[in-house]
Amino acid sequence: MILTVTLNTALDITYRVRSLTPHASHRVSDVVERPGGKGLNVARVLAALGHEVTVTGFTGGATGGQLQEHLTATPGVRDALVPVAGSTRRTVAVVDGRTGDTTQLNEPGPVIAPAEWIAFQEAYEDLLPSAAAVALCGSLPPGVPVGAYALLVRTARAAGVPVLLDTSGEPLRRGIAARPDLIKPNADELAELTGSHEPLRAVQDARRRGARTVVASLGTEGLLAASPEGRWRAVPPARVHGNPTGAGDSAVAGLLSGLVDHLPWPDRLARAVALSAATVLAPVAGEFDRAAYEELLGRVAVVTETSAA
Amino acid sequence: MILTVTLNTALDITYRVRSLTPHASHRVSDVVERPGGKGLNVARVLAALGHEVTVTGFTGGATGGQLQEHLTATPGVRDALVPVAGSTRRTVAVVDGRTGDTTQLNEPGPVIAPAEWIAFQEAYEDLLPSAAAVALCGSLPPGVPVGAYALLVRTARAAGVPVLLDTSGEPLRRGIAARPDLIKPNADELAELTGSHEPLRAVQDARRRGARTVVASLGTEGLLAASPEGRWRAVPPARVHGNPTGAGDSAVAGLLSGLVDHLPWPDRLARAVALSAATVLAPVAGEFDRAAYEELLGRVAVVTETSAA
Repeated sequence: MILTVTLNTALDITYRVRSLTPHASHRVSDVVERPGGKGLNVARVLAALGHEVTVTGFTGGATGGQLQEHLTATPGVRDALVPVAGSTRRTVAVVDGRTGDTTQLNEPGPVIAPAEWIAFQEAYEDLLPSAAAVALCGSLPPGVPVGAYALLVRTARAAGVPVLLDTSGEPLRRGIAARPDLIKPNADELAELTGSHEPLRAVQDARRRGARTVVASLGTEGLLAASPEGRWRAVPPARVHGNPTGAGDSAVAGLLSGLVDHLPWPDRLARAVALSAATVLAPVAGEFDRAAYEELLGRVAVVTETSAA
Repeated sequence: MILTVTLNTALDITYRVRSLTPHASHRVSDVVERPGGKGLNVARVLAALGHEVTVTGFTGGATGGQLQEHLTATPGVRDALVPVAGSTRRTVAVVDGRTGDTTQLNEPGPVIAPAEWIAFQEAYEDLLPSAAAVALCGSLPPGVPVGAYALLVRTARAAGVPVLLDTSGEPLRRGIAARPDLIKPNADELAELTGSHEPLRAVQDARRRGARTVVASLGTEGLLAASPEGRWRAVPPARVHGNPTGAGDSAVAGLLSGLVDHLPWPDRLARAVALSAATVLAPVAGEFDRAAYEELLGRVAVVTETSAA
């Protein structure tokens, strides 16, 4: 199975309103709830691709219960979340029916107690031996030490399990020093990590900081990868229009899927780009359009990057 | 005990953000959850005044469970909500920390099935014999017939229990014809019911439509009452500044409290005005400031209304 870790899980709630007007009262016409946090999004895409996935991280309170009910209803995803005393946070996305724009409200979430963090580390160590790969995804909740991902990367490496790290800021800076197999920063995260806004220079700098392979997601320009085996750019066949929510998580799922299927790098990148584009095209945010994915897969252009950084 | 009926219960969630900007992402700094719907607000105020209160209406799903957990933690309030298959709605109030203004998002709530509406009527009939008074509060959820309040008013009258109706629109128009003991419309609801924007004329017209007593809440101008015993105006000693959320529900609680304590009308009105003003003054929306209430109580001016309508 593939293991995904989401320390800052959430119950994602999407509201559709006619038009969002500050200081007015709104009737919500449509309510959609689903498990949230990057690792849970990655898991949903992996399960839809046919992989067995186990999710871990924290869950607590009534909102944690709602999140777990939704997980139970997701075929192919096994729930190995660790209970905490606090309540799992909610995120509320308010979609303006007139413009399609989204206003986001994110609760802070519970503070993780030291004993809860220790209980998680034990659960994680118990899960690793059955994992073909592990993804560490998203921000850290309050109470978890900033060096948490460095610790989890080292534990995975000691267990011989390939580890992908998808986070930002100081947790990324610390985590990368523990030598993860793969990081997938977007352009902003990469620039923040390396100080360089020139992607080719930046991915190589990120490799020097400890990541074996760096796959940068550059929005409409696709992916730029730097690994010991070579450097590639992978771009979708045409510019896709839609909702980019979850496109990065779908790219992570594509990379993991290609890794456990032992695909060569260009095929992994094609899978990630096609999934990402098919997510932008899907009518529901964070889902992917399967027909679009299959159609796009053969049309992603993957070229070897030869220019010097 | 006093019975309050809330057919459209809600889990009220209040978010505080630095400043609400449409189409931006916001970190919520503070989350407050409490049972919502007018009848539950009335019950909380009555319990704080020392009355025994039973609440009924509908509850369902995980949000219903959260609502009931909060009720369990409220001393003096007994939970007699009727379970339904759907999920209790959430309301989200987003308070802008810069301006103090509130943006409201109200979920539609579950559709009540015919069998659930019948189960509620049975529970209501079973509760009435122990009730000293009953309040029917708020809007009707989808699935409940528009004549619901007329039916519930008649059942209460047949059981000999004084009944207060606090709703609006067509449910009020139908309900009033069943001859409730008391209605408490605000200025807009009264004008919608009677077609008159002149309060004194309108309260008398509302009496002719079937309400034994009409107490209109006129915002900063206090209350205007017309009953078989006479007509009064009751006004707070000074203009109060604050959050008017829940002020109308506190007025209803004051009227019910005065009714079961067998106070003369002027004292009931003074209690309602003082509670209402103390709710506007309270830092938390919908709570009342007890010290302010006790201080205001003796200073409410209640005058007999002598002018002809």
